[in-house]
Amino acid sequence: MMTAKLKTAVMGATGYSGQELVRLLLRHPRVEKPALLQREKEGKSPDLSEFAPAFSGNGIYPFQSLNFSQLKRVGVELLFLATPHDVSRSLVPEAIANDLRVVDLSGAWRLKQGQHRAIYNFEDQNAASAAELTKRAVYGLPELHSDCIANAELVANPGCYATSIILALAPLLRAGIVDAEHGVISDSKSGVSGAGKEANSRTHFVSVADNLSAYSVFNHRHLGEIAEQLHLETGKITSTPHLLPIPRGILSTIYVQLNRTTNAQEIEDCFESFYGDKPWVRLFVSPQLPQIQFSLHTNYCDLGFCLDQDGRRLIIVSCLDNLLKGAAGQAVQNMNLMYGWCEKEGLN
Amino acid sequence: MMTAKLKTAVMGATGYSGQELVRLLLRHPRVEKPALLQREKEGKSPDLSEFAPAFSGNGIYPFQSLNFSQLKRVGVELLFLATPHDVSRSLVPEAIANDLRVVDLSGAWRLKQGQHRAIYNFEDQNAASAAELTKRAVYGLPELHSDCIANAELVANPGCYATSIILALAPLLRAGIVDAEHGVISDSKSGVSGAGKEANSRTHFVSVADNLSAYSVFNHRHLGEIAEQLHLETGKITSTPHLLPIPRGILSTIYVQLNRTTNAQEIEDCFESFYGDKPWVRLFVSPQLPQIQFSLHTNYCDLGFCLDQDGRRLIIVSCLDNLLKGAAGQAVQNMNLMYGWCEKEGLN
Amino acid sequence: MMTAKLKTAVMGATGYSGQELVRLLLRHPRVEKPALLQREKEGKSPDLSEFAPAFSGNGIYPFQSLNFSQLKRVGVELLFLATPHDVSRSLVPEAIANDLRVVDLSGAWRLKQGQHRAIYNFEDQNAASAAELTKRAVYGLPELHSDCIANAELVANPGCYATSIILALAPLLRAGIVDAEHGVISDSKSGVSGAGKEANSRTHFVSVADNLSAYSVFNHRHLGEIAEQLHLETGKITSTPHLLPIPRGILSTIYVQLNRTTNAQEIEDCFESFYGDKPWVRLFVSPQLPQIQFSLHTNYCDLGFCLDQDGRRLIIVSCLDNLLKGAAGQAVQNMNLMYGWCEKEGLN
Amino acid sequence: MMTAKLKTAVMGATGYSGQELVRLLLRHPRVEKPALLQREKEGKSPDLSEFAPAFSGNGIYPFQSLNFSQLKRVGVELLFLATPHDVSRSLVPEAIANDLRVVDLSGAWRLKQGQHRAIYNFEDQNAASAAELTKRAVYGLPELHSDCIANAELVANPGCYATSIILALAPLLRAGIVDAEHGVISDSKSGVSGAGKEANSRTHFVSVADNLSAYSVFNHRHLGEIAEQLHLETGKITSTPHLLPIPRGILSTIYVQLNRTTNAQEIEDCFESFYGDKPWVRLFVSPQLPQIQFSLHTNYCDLGFCLDQDGRRLIIVSCLDNLLKGAAGQAVQNMNLMYGWCEKEGLN
Repeated sequence: MMTAKLKTAVMGATGYSGQELVRLLLRHPRVEKPALLQREKEGKSPDLSEFAPAFSGNGIYPFQSLNFSQLKRVGVELLFLATPHDVSRSLVPEAIANDLRVVDLSGAWRLKQGQHRAIYNFEDQNAASAAELTKRAVYGLPELHSDCIANAELVANPGCYATSIILALAPLLRAGIVDAEHGVISDSKSGVSGAGKEANSRTHFVSVADNLSAYSVFNHRHLGEIAEQLHLETGKITSTPHLLPIPRGILSTIYVQLNRTTNAQEIEDCFESFYGDKPWVRLFVSPQLPQIQFSLHTNYCDLGFCLDQDGRRLIIVSCLDNLLKGAAGQAVQNMNLMYGWCEKEGLN
Repeated sequence: MMTAKLKTAVMGATGYSGQELVRLLLRHPRVEKPALLQREKEGKSPDLSEFAPAFSGNGIYPFQSLNFSQLKRVGVELLFLATPHDVSRSLVPEAIANDLRVVDLSGAWRLKQGQHRAIYNFEDQNAASAAELTKRAVYGLPELHSDCIANAELVANPGCYATSIILALAPLLRAGIVDAEHGVISDSKSGVSGAGKEANSRTHFVSVADNLSAYSVFNHRHLGEIAEQLHLETGKITSTPHLLPIPRGILSTIYVQLNRTTNAQEIEDCFESFYGDKPWVRLFVSPQLPQIQFSLHTNYCDLGFCLDQDGRRLIIVSCLDNLLKGAAGQAVQNMNLMYGWCEKEGLN
Repeated sequence: MMTAKLKTAVMGATGYSGQELVRLLLRHPRVEKPALLQREKEGKSPDLSEFAPAFSGNGIYPFQSLNFSQLKRVGVELLFLATPHDVSRSLVPEAIANDLRVVDLSGAWRLKQGQHRAIYNFEDQNAASAAELTKRAVYGLPELHSDCIANAELVANPGCYATSIILALAPLLRAGIVDAEHGVISDSKSGVSGAGKEANSRTHFVSVADNLSAYSVFNHRHLGEIAEQLHLETGKITSTPHLLPIPRGILSTIYVQLNRTTNAQEIEDCFESFYGDKPWVRLFVSPQLPQIQFSLHTNYCDLGFCLDQDGRRLIIVSCLDNLLKGAAGQAVQNMNLMYGWCEKEGLN
Repeated sequence: MMTAKLKTAVMGATGYSGQELVRLLLRHPRVEKPALLQREKEGKSPDLSEFAPAFSGNGIYPFQSLNFSQLKRVGVELLFLATPHDVSRSLVPEAIANDLRVVDLSGAWRLKQGQHRAIYNFEDQNAASAAELTKRAVYGLPELHSDCIANAELVANPGCYATSIILALAPLLRAGIVDAEHGVISDSKSGVSGAGKEANSRTHFVSVADNLSAYSVFNHRHLGEIAEQLHLETGKITSTPHLLPIPRGILSTIYVQLNRTTNAQEIEDCFESFYGDKPWVRLFVSPQLPQIQFSLHTNYCDLGFCLDQDGRRLIIVSCLDNLLKGAAGQAVQNMNLMYGWCEKEGLN
């Protein structure tokens, strides 16, 4: 017997991550065509294909006004938010109160230790309930928290940079071979879609093409979730984002000092034992290293590494598609876990 | 005896063409460091290097408020306007009235036949004097109008697309070998700096990269000046602009039918006799064709062609750097003519 | 009852089109994992993931030596050739003799009128049988020849430029509203993957980036199949290819003169009636025009148009992904027709 | 009285650095048009414009066979080598023996401590004289060694990555505020022209575009000269090169630990006192950081930095144009010093 397909809704479908999410949901065998939500209904709803002409030719994608009771009435169970941080922060309590499960792609619910206010500058309407909800929110990195995700009502989908860095470091830190006191450095480079759809002087083609620039040095928003997830002091993790002249993709080059002499096989084993059964992490073995191209348009996080001759300096290279494993693909991976489906469903 | 250097002023130095113009004037051996003008003085004048960090490290480039009597007092003779069309339209009469000579990089004064209003939608404060000034304005394409430019008080610097197309066609049309009745087609492709510095959804990196798009089909503003300069009916010239994923450069592929059978040598001779003594047009002889790269960061317009076996279909390829021969370089070339200097001065 | 999946083999899987084809076949619900063939077995067969690391992480993709009797023994029914023209020309007769059906992505069997020798300079081993096979080969453009494709033993998959141009013009030419005598012009621009995987000075990154260049002017190999399919004299179709600084995608800007005054609705109706039931052609209605981005990573050929005010000059813009609708996607679409499946199967 | 212009010769003018060098020499007011040398004369010498069409239109640039006695006879004093390492290694002794001064852009003579053989795998014809010449060779980084360069007969022009890293670190290391024991990390990213003109699978447009990749991890050739010039143990300097999808430009992001708490002003003063009178190093003060674009087509090395709140972690960003300050521009800067001219001559 065929079970009924899941009903979902997406808010923020016009952004880059939102478009990618809708594309994935449309192909997902266990999900109905998602409802597309927007905040204000202004006359006749526009169609998603007006914002993203690539959606033309496959029926219509009208927007409807966000209305929680209406969503319940039609049987929507899961809400994806691809909205700005503050919008997510204010919508989630109401969504949860209406018995919806939520996967939030923003940074609004990722941090446990009360740093949200400092980083995102939120004004919660009901601080107590927001604090309570923050506790119940699950950090949606399936390779680390699959059990909690399965039962979560609110999944905080990780940041794109954070995903690339956490997945590169978690196995080594858990194995206890990283000299965390020495400090960990991630030099990260991202395509422009990571900066969002807003047109400004930084995202103008002429500013980006034939260029590379560092930004948010010592001050990037993802530092909080990286430190928290890796149990590092913020002073011991340095992460410098750079803006690459490409539309999508992230490569992080990560520098660690090991606390004992080791060899390449041991590092490889460490990654293999951690990710051997995880479908969306690939390990490239020396001398091969991941490149951004390899993971583009896939949900993979690709990892590779080089160990210095002395066996103490280790460089890890981590690549992913910031709109897939760094956003919409990971959101679908989380949905798969939340509904007990195969983690790869709909993502091939 | 060394003659005193020319004093110039530039309005609109923060735009792409304006920056390029300042760069050229700073290197020009016969010109003083130009005065940089802006419309409103708001407190302390900012420095050009704030808008364009590439100007750092070579002294300061402060802006001053536009004040015609002040310009005269300090001996400025020549004013460059790298301003929007409507700003140029309103500033030029006053500048001329103050005895300044003007090179205007906008489209405000390029058209003779009263089409300005239709294309640019101007509201002249003094329609009669604007009409009179329109008559006196010289279309600043040195390869066609060097004598008039030498004595002009107002030079209307041509459009970038227009320059690439007019220079490709003028020799052939004057030689009478083009079947103009058949219609002339230019398929033109430009880098993004041609679209200006404004950040919008069209100039966002993600919209342009890995893409190509046509725009303003049958409707581009430069059509008027092309038709006028080439004495073609507007219905007989088709020019389709496309937005290339590169910062700068234009390539026009131009299709004409000849009115008699000819051979490649004859076409080559036609170009050679027209441009043989012109320093800023280069002819590439078959099988070589110009490419955008060859003319980047130079003031050349590069021309090449292919003739079909039947000797009747001709394709001309025309390349230039839209910020140099298509804007700032041509403006300096015009200045050189206006002051009796070598046409190449300051442009190598 | 579930029918058994089709067994296929791919020769030339290391090229760009070949890789894309393997990727599509792996996702196709009615096809088994394809056998990957190569000409000489040199010791241990390498794996496709060595040539294309993006294939890592999903099992192995070993190559096997081409051996027709072995293919038959294991039940392979359909052979895809993503090989150079001359290789396809020499392999196909043997494959057909071994009862395999073939989809050939090269130009070896596309032309009916004996021009193959002139264009591709073939030396057939058995000229008579090659001539006979040429007659039986079906030009694999599903929107024009779906019935013949369904029964074909040899499908000649169209060229990428040719697909973009033929699909844009066929409806208008069949409707008899194009002034073919006037001549038809296609100014076409392609990403670099269309030039193949060979590393040479033309495909070097520094030669292509920040550049645009025309090539094969009046002399491109696809002209033959375009003229033949559209029933145009070769002297009446001009097609100029250009090399774009992007990895993939084609945009053709096509200029025609109409033989009577018409209006936009009539043009739209003409396209709609031709392609209304075709799943892989999308029409963008004025003022929207297709852009390369819209069709990337899809099997669509996107069409749009602009009509001049006078109702006689028409510009059609045609976009597709040269590796999908221009090669591998179209090959799968042809397979779908050959086996009676839905034309969209495996291509979403 | 005007002194005679210097006569120079360039070997290797067809490569990217060589072309840029010829372009600079042609504009240099104190230098004659350089002689272009090649190793074998095969019939009629080709012209540089055949390799680099951008040189068209300004006279001819014929190649002549390398012949040291002929060079002396016509009065050439200075030889530039833009040749592969092994060619430079074998040509320099003979050039010096013929009383030519040499600026060598390869890595052949950069290292003092006998590591050349290990890194570049040379087979010197005369090991003793090569060793002796190695001692006399001057590392041509003008900001560090201007006095020695002035009198050098052989200047070893630094590597592009090395220049960006050494200039960023030298002031801080000399000031003694870097904790060198902690280790210094440079994450460097370069445009493709740095990989040379050879067409291979790594430099194919499709391999580079929309991509980023790390290479030569723990193993880059420039490490030797960086460690030597900065007096660091090789185990204490980590430098990871990456290939950027841009034609030219380098950005190095450099991570150091300071050995005492400091503040931004102190760092700024440290750079200012070191480079205050150096014309080709620019310091960008916080919050501004250099970007690759700012230094493109200039001879500047641009430096900027960020200090963490704790005053102990410092990140330096260093940008330059790999073909100018990283190669040809620096070679001309060295020539200026060798002949007692202003360091900026011919480089504006």
